[in-house]
This record gives sequence, C-alpha cells and structure tokens, in this order.
Amino acid sequence: MLLKTIEHYQHRVDTHLTKVIDELTTTDEQLKAAMKHGALLGGKRIRPFLVYAVGDMLGVDLNKLDPAAAAIECIHAYSLIHDDLPAMDDDNLRRGLPTVHIAFDEATAILTGDALQSLAFDIISEPTSGLSAKQSLSMVKVLASSAGYNGMCGGQAIDLKSTNKKIDLATLTQLHSLKTGALIRCAVELAIIAAETNDDERHRLLDFADAVGLAFQVQDDVLDITGSTEELGKPQGSDTNANKSTYPKLLGLAGAQQTAHTLIQDALSALAKLPYNSQLIAEFARYIIERKV
Amino acid sequence: MLLKTIEHYQHRVDTHLTKVIDELTTTDEQLKAAMKHGALLGGKRIRPFLVYAVGDMLGVDLNKLDPAAAAIECIHAYSLIHDDLPAMDDDNLRRGLPTVHIAFDEATAILTGDALQSLAFDIISEPTSGLSAKQSLSMVKVLASSAGYNGMCGGQAIDLKSTNKKIDLATLTQLHSLKTGALIRCAVELAIIAAETNDDERHRLLDFADAVGLAFQVQDDVLDITGSTEELGKPQGSDTNANKSTYPKLLGLAGAQQTAHTLIQDALSALAKLPYNSQLIAEFARYIIERKV
Repeated sequence: MLLKTIEHYQHRVDTHLTKVIDELTTTDEQLKAAMKHGALLGGKRIRPFLVYAVGDMLGVDLNKLDPAAAAIECIHAYSLIHDDLPAMDDDNLRRGLPTVHIAFDEATAILTGDALQSLAFDIISEPTSGLSAKQSLSMVKVLASSAGYNGMCGGQAIDLKSTNKKIDLATLTQLHSLKTGALIRCAVELAIIAAETNDDERHRLLDFADAVGLAFQVQDDVLDITGSTEELGKPQGSDTNANKSTYPKLLGLAGAQQTAHTLIQDALSALAKLPYNSQLIAEFARYIIERKV
Repeated sequence: MLLKTIEHYQHRVDTHLTKVIDELTTTDEQLKAAMKHGALLGGKRIRPFLVYAVGDMLGVDLNKLDPAAAAIECIHAYSLIHDDLPAMDDDNLRRGLPTVHIAFDEATAILTGDALQSLAFDIISEPTSGLSAKQSLSMVKVLASSAGYNGMCGGQAIDLKSTNKKIDLATLTQLHSLKTGALIRCAVELAIIAAETNDDERHRLLDFADAVGLAFQVQDDVLDITGSTEELGKPQGSDTNANKSTYPKLLGLAGAQQTAHTLIQDALSALAKLPYNSQLIAEFARYIIERKV
C-alpha cells in the first residue's frame, strides 16, 4: 500500500515537473538537459510524497498540491546539485548516476542549481492552481524561509564548518534540523496551508514533521554504515570517509538506531491525536527507519 | 538631481536589506557575514532605483516598494557572487573589493548566493507590505521567471557557451537581453504591478526598460575598453581578456557607442508617450550611456 502510493506520487510529481521544464522557452538546450538530469532522474520524492499524502489526509484536492510538490522537489534537487560540487562534498555519484558537474561541467552545475531554485518559486507562484493568492503567497514564504539562511542553507553552512571537526549532539541535531528537517517540515506545512488547518492540528502535524525529518537523517547516517554502495547509489561509508560527524559516531550504531526509533514513536504519538485517517502517514513514518535505501 | 536621487534610493534599499539580514535568526555567523559582503558593499543599485523611481512616477507609495527593491537586489547580488566563482568568470575583484569566494571561500560563496536567492523570495512574499496578496504573488512570479531559465540564468548559460567563441550580433543581443535585460525589465515590471498600470502604459514602460537594459550592457562593454581599473573597481579590459564577445568587438567602439545612443533615444520615445512626469527617468536613461563607471 505505502510503496505503491509512494510510486504513484513519485510519478505524479515527475509528470508535473517534466511538463513544466519542457514548456520553458528554450534558451539553452544544455542547461535544460542539466535541469532535467538534476531534477528528474530517480529519488524517493519524500518531500512531494509528504505534500500529497498529508494534503490528501486533510481532504485537499491533489490538483491544488501539484505546484507545491514540484516546487519543493526543485529546491531539494538544486541543493543536491550544489552539495555535490567539488568545493562542497565533491561527490561524483548520486542515485547511481554521475552528478551534474560530472555529467556536464562545474559552471553548468552551479547554474543548473540556480535555475532550479528560481523555477521552484516560478512554479509555486502559479496563480492557476486553485488556491487563493493568499495561500499561494504563504506557500512562497514558507518555501523561501525553509530553503534559505534560517533553513536548509543555514544547515549546510553548519555542515561545512563541522567537517573534520568533532561536534556535539546538540550541534549535529541543529545541523540536520535545518539541512534536512526544514524542507521536510516545509512539505507538511505546504499541505497545511492548502487545507487551512486549525492551529492545534497544525502544531501536531509540524511535531510529526520535525520528528520524521530528524529520524530520516539519523537513518541516513545508519544506512551509510549498514547499506551497500549498490543499494545506496553512492559510495557506502562516504560520510564516514568525509570525516563528518554522524549519529552513529556520537551515539554508536545501536544508539543511533534507538534514537531513530524513539523519534518515530514521537511522530506516531503526534499523529494519533489528529482526527484524520492517518494510516498511510503512520506507515510512512515507520518506513523511514525500516528502509534500506 | 539624478545622482542625489540615486544615492537616496541606494541608501533606502541598503537600509531595508541590512535590517532584513540582521533580523535573520543567526544559524551561522560566517554565512551571514558573507551575505552582507555580497549584498551590501557598494554598487549603483540600478534595479532598486528603477523599482522606486518608476513606482514613484506612477504614484505608488514607496513603502510598498521596499520589499521588491530589496528582493531584486538580492537576486542581482547572488548572480554576481556565482558569476565571479572560479568555475565561472573567475574574478577576484568586484566593486574594488575581494569577491566573496576570495574574502571567504568557494563553498561559502556558492552557499551565500543560494541563500540570497532564497532571501529574495522570502522578502518579496512578505504579506505586510501594503500590497494585495495577488500583487505580491505576481511580483514573485515575475521575479522568479526573470531570474531563472527564461531570464538571467538562461543568459548566463549562453554567455558561458559563448566565451572563446565568435558569436553574431543576434546571439550577443539575446545573451544580454536575458543576462542583464531580464532583471532591468523585471525592476520596471515590479513597479507596474504595484501601480496596477493599464496595458498600454505597461507596454510602453517595458519598451523603455528593454531599451535601457540593453544600452546598459552596451555601455558596460564600452567602459571595459575606455574606463580605468580604478574607476571600474575591476580590472580594465577583463571582458576583452576573457575572450568574450562584446559590442565593441562586433561593431567597433564608435559603432557600439552609436548603438547605445540609439537605444536611449528609443527609451526616451517610449517615455514621451506616457502621461506622467518622466523627467527623472529620462535623466536616468541618458545617464546610462554617459556614466564612467
């Protein structure tokens, strides 16, 4: 049920994104090809899934969520392209394929990330999406602040500074709450804006999102040790090799696994208090720590 | 009169931008410092000037224009930071100061550009700016499409491909209409959205913007030959040395100067048909081709 739905939403967001990129006036074929390479080749589409699945649970027409789902994936995709650059993590492989600066070149990779970030805001500000202008504007605001200094970029800055250094658990948690967590939380918040949920339910949903977002990262760290290069689509142990602080390094493998487990229990408790059929979302939360890739 | 007003608006947008950046929750001091370095140290502020001056001409309360002016400058600033990177133009000096990747490092420069782009959309979607949500949303849309693949990023992609190659006048014009022109046009369009101008006036204003945008770039190419390193704040002849196609290369110095002159005449004709006091804007158009920096 869950994996079928993930696949369904994955297909839905990819179809929407492909359409949007194909319809861009062609100024430069190579830049367009690089944007597609970076934004459309594989990936679990966790963020769009959350936009759709939480929105659907709250009774929102999925058509209203297509721009938000596509936009948040553009932000995620751009961040991966820039993170992979030689000056950043210097990764050659992503999802089993050459990263954008390898498949194209470094300048194109920088520009592709930049263009995908612009595209995110172009897509999410589309006025024909069935949302009120006020709702769309709120979505822009949430996406922008989650992506920027107070969110993902801030997390990446802390990450850069923490490489080759021992950092404590509080700093590691702040790092990931921003670098990965901010966009996961944003995905849920975009659905909340579309549904115009009340404040109480909003807080519970965001508690759910925060717990899932952190668990996702803890499990990523765990998989970096326990997974294989083939399963991961990137070199196994690449975070360890890069001398990055990880949860298993600070807590031990069993400790990290326990932390992920506790976080998912918190997420499920937050869900249980909501007056909606949260079966799918709960299954997703459990999947986060059971997944192998 | 013009230079005093330019200075006035320069100060206005810098004050607004400083306030916005200072108020960001501090996640990483260095990233914040780099954002300030890239966004606040000097520059003519041509784009904010156009937002304010055109808006003022159309009767818009300037307070409504602060977010638009600050946001477009963030986009411009981010593009300069990324253009200066080693993989792009590899420039060490900008406005007489070390570029961001020199003052900080390359990873920080990439991230600073990314965070400034997010900040632009964070600022322009601020709901308390006295504009309707519909107007703010239109502003987001125009800014995003002007900055992205169909605008500035598309132009930069053509620019990268054109280095070390001889391109024709049509390609050079397309390159600059996108790379520089799109944001100049966007500045005027943001003022139009705030003023809710009718279609006829809108078209004339955008004709003005397109002519001024192109003239600005032609004059930049001219100054790269006739200006001094000290005046320009970057090495004189840097475009020529980088084997970039320029208007003087394709048209000769006199031919390029004549083209800039004709474009400004077009811009002034478009202005003359408008029922507003366009004296300041006309003075600005003439300044574009008379400036030495």
